[in-house]
Amino acid sequence: MTATNYDFVNAPDRRHTDSVKWDVKDGELPMWIADMDFKTAPEIIKAMQKKIALGAFGYEWPQTDYFNAVADWYEKEHGFRPENEWMIFTTGVVPAISSIVRRVSHIGDNVLVQEPVYNIFFNSIENNGRHVLSSDLILDGQTYQINWQDLEEKLALPLTTLMIFCNPHNPVGKVWTKAEVQKMAELCAKHHVVLLSDEIHGDIVRNDQGYTSAFSVNGAAQENVISLVSPSKTFNVAALHAATAIVPGENLRNMVNRGLNSDEVAEPNLLAIPATIAAYEHGHEWLHALIEQLEENFAYAERFIKDNLPQVKVITGDATYLMWLDVEQVTDDSQKLADFIRKETGLIISAGSVYRGNGHDFLRINLACPMTMVKDGMERLKKGIEYFK
Amino acid sequence: MTATNYDFVNAPDRRHTDSVKWDVKDGELPMWIADMDFKTAPEIIKAMQKKIALGAFGYEWPQTDYFNAVADWYEKEHGFRPENEWMIFTTGVVPAISSIVRRVSHIGDNVLVQEPVYNIFFNSIENNGRHVLSSDLILDGQTYQINWQDLEEKLALPLTTLMIFCNPHNPVGKVWTKAEVQKMAELCAKHHVVLLSDEIHGDIVRNDQGYTSAFSVNGAAQENVISLVSPSKTFNVAALHAATAIVPGENLRNMVNRGLNSDEVAEPNLLAIPATIAAYEHGHEWLHALIEQLEENFAYAERFIKDNLPQVKVITGDATYLMWLDVEQVTDDSQKLADFIRKETGLIISAGSVYRGNGHDFLRINLACPMTMVKDGMERLKKGIEYFK
Ligand SMILES: Cc1ncc(COP(=O)(O)O)c(C=O)c1O
Ligand SMILES: Cc1ncc(COP(=O)(O)O)c(C=O)c1O
Repeated sequence: MTATNYDFVNAPDRRHTDSVKWDVKDGELPMWIADMDFKTAPEIIKAMQKKIALGAFGYEWPQTDYFNAVADWYEKEHGFRPENEWMIFTTGVVPAISSIVRRVSHIGDNVLVQEPVYNIFFNSIENNGRHVLSSDLILDGQTYQINWQDLEEKLALPLTTLMIFCNPHNPVGKVWTKAEVQKMAELCAKHHVVLLSDEIHGDIVRNDQGYTSAFSVNGAAQENVISLVSPSKTFNVAALHAATAIVPGENLRNMVNRGLNSDEVAEPNLLAIPATIAAYEHGHEWLHALIEQLEENFAYAERFIKDNLPQVKVITGDATYLMWLDVEQVTDDSQKLADFIRKETGLIISAGSVYRGNGHDFLRINLACPMTMVKDGMERLKKGIEYFK
Repeated sequence: MTATNYDFVNAPDRRHTDSVKWDVKDGELPMWIADMDFKTAPEIIKAMQKKIALGAFGYEWPQTDYFNAVADWYEKEHGFRPENEWMIFTTGVVPAISSIVRRVSHIGDNVLVQEPVYNIFFNSIENNGRHVLSSDLILDGQTYQINWQDLEEKLALPLTTLMIFCNPHNPVGKVWTKAEVQKMAELCAKHHVVLLSDEIHGDIVRNDQGYTSAFSVNGAAQENVISLVSPSKTFNVAALHAATAIVPGENLRNMVNRGLNSDEVAEPNLLAIPATIAAYEHGHEWLHALIEQLEENFAYAERFIKDNLPQVKVITGDATYLMWLDVEQVTDDSQKLADFIRKETGLIISAGSVYRGNGHDFLRINLACPMTMVKDGMERLKKGIEYFK
């Protein structure tokens, strides 16, 4: 069923390269850090090769074709076109988050998050002398929900000045609805809290509705949001170091722009612009083929776990290539379990505890790899969990 | 006389790319920003192409081969081998400077520089709420000198906590001697001022002695220095975003390391590592051929100016591909002169005034381009200065 033009069967061998993911011992299988094992879209590789052929690599600055490409992508893939003036190039989503934490909040302030959540948010907040404040997501049967009353109470605290919203949500895979995103933006605006929406996983949604970008909200709340987008997760180009901050409000945009520039995370490297343009103008077909492959991988893993590991519950929503596994019936110390699985089987997965909140009851497993690896990973997971008891 | 294997005659056409330098009107000739018009070394392009062929571009981290390559280069080219543990990868020299300003000094402190000096130092200092304090270089006939007494007085001020040393010096092209670098390091250590040595121009020295890296100083002062090096200027790869901080002192190194990481300027993009390794392991011959070409360009320009513009004095030292022209007999407002030259002749050069100090009497012109452009530039300069009067 996967598109015949693209290869989701083979994975380049990244052992003994500089890959963080594949810096493993012989026989280990890394299914933790969020990069994929597939080659990126051939359209992107072609654009990179063309740029390399130019040969002279002095200072660069993004031009209109870059911003048009980002706008085209959001219009075609997500049904809402950002204006070119809203956008600022940046070297990555995390670099932008850290810079915005420094520029928009003050030392000692609270930055609100929703645990369990992408652990690097904690670094961006705490390394800059701010406090993490969480309005924990509530696990309600099969899916996580926002506790709106708790959220609003925490937004209303005088020291809460910034909220980092994971939209869609890593690690729980939740796609927030249009109504939820609108409500979130309005509550933040009401309490004068800037809403920073990390949308790095926005393109990888395994259903037909897709996600709602914060920059597309209606009304005055739009002046108060920052969306961060990137081809990084979508096309397996984390090391491209290319992302875009989309900030409809002019005042807020100027602040963010100053911060990104002073913090030296606003200049593109020699591949960032042409590869992003290629991704956003010519990557649609590849992405849709990727999503089909991910659907197969998720279906396989879900079936396997149901059949073989009845004590494990799949909680994953429709977004991201990361599966969130409830292992509460096995342990409440998921770090211990993850360490044990690695030692016994060589399978490397993320302990949910690093995401805080109720993460100590969970494991996160990266399924963005060829089906043979998914199958291998599942067998190891089974063995590891069985031995653990 | 140029090496037959390498092409210093043609320049890739970068008009209508994302190049900052070549974002010019028809007929304009940019000889300002410090990137070259030559293609980089073919050995580097080959390494880039090989990396692109890998296809999967997730998160990366530099391994031993990277640090070995940097060490090999400094040993072979500059006669002193830094230890691998002294080094930290960073995305650029300016990103590292800004980060070190923030980590090593406090808001309101003085950061000492030697004007006229690379203007972006002022941004790194002032954008972070520190003050620029200058111990101006003294023009003594044909060459600039350090006023050591003034320097020491300013190092001794209690609010002076960091010194940024341009080694070799842009824009005046001065190569500091071994004795001068040693003395500078010792004075800084004596007054508890961290010595940050920007060595981005260190490889391009048009004499046989070469420059002295701050990390190679003797004695206790070595614990107090940070050298920043990069293939960026040397190989025309500014947009590679690759540099290395070399910090012999363990305590200082740990501070710098934390700063670079928190500031998100410590992770390599997908080309940074392989291209730097190729440059440092296989770029020797290309660099020496480049320097021969630059010697020809400098000799031509010097001769031309002597013959045609007697009111202009060439002050340039042996380092950098930038020529520093004393135009005091023409104007003391070099910005006005540079603007006039651009308007009348299309030649774009830097007004010395941006470098502060006595820069208002100077122009800076970039000679790292094919000889045809050097000649064209000289004709335009002549016309511009003649019309100006
Ligand atoms: C939610 C989220 N934001 C950001 C990132 C990383 O962004 P970048 O690599 O652009 O800094 C990740 C990577 O896993 C992520 O999951
Ligand atoms: C002295 C000096 N330092 C640093 C830089 C720029 O460094 P980077 O591009 O690595 O930030 C330049 C560029 O002109 C320079 O002249």
